[in-house]
Amino acid sequence: MTKQIDPLKELSSHRASIDNFDAALIHILAERFRKTKQVGELKAKFNLPPSDKEREKSQIKHLRQLAKDSDLDPDFAEKFLEFIIKEVIQHHKQVQG
Amino acid sequence: MTKQIDPLKELSSHRASIDNFDAALIHILAERFRKTKQVGELKAKFNLPPSDKEREKSQIKHLRQLAKDSDLDPDFAEKFLEFIIKEVIQHHKQVQG
Repeated sequence: MTKQIDPLKELSSHRASIDNFDAALIHILAERFRKTKQVGELKAKFNLPPSDKEREKSQIKHLRQLAKDSDLDPDFAEKFLEFIIKEVIQHHKQVQG
Repeated sequence: MTKQIDPLKELSSHRASIDNFDAALIHILAERFRKTKQVGELKAKFNLPPSDKEREKSQIKHLRQLAKDSDLDPDFAEKFLEFIIKEVIQHHKQVQG
């Protein structure tokens, strides 16, 4: 016995979940930027360099592993982190500049 | 009275929080992609178009508002969503192609 599905109803249900995930992502990102803003202020105050290549390498390695463990494309996880870090470094430069 | 702070200790503490936020982001993203994969399969099965401009517009509008509410740059939230949607559409095209 196969179950008839209404594709548009199904699509709408998936989208409701996606919207919830996106809201969660936005709120965590907001909190992450509050934190990196504090980091930026700290770095500006103590003349620490705005970017830290060693830290970034270790973040990338760690996130690639987390991605693998949760069946997310590790290349995407890396691109995602680079995307965020790029934004953060711009913010830091604005603070220091 | 001002409190002496150790900038490197402070930095390390902020970074521990950032790592936790990143782990949360990766896991939510993994779940979001599981969902969009289901959407992609549904769209392929019922010949629905891989992208939906109206849906994207409404997502952007909603996320910009959420970003404003949580004091995140709405332009960044929009760029972030576009970054993810671009990846999802590539996945959908791979499924349909």
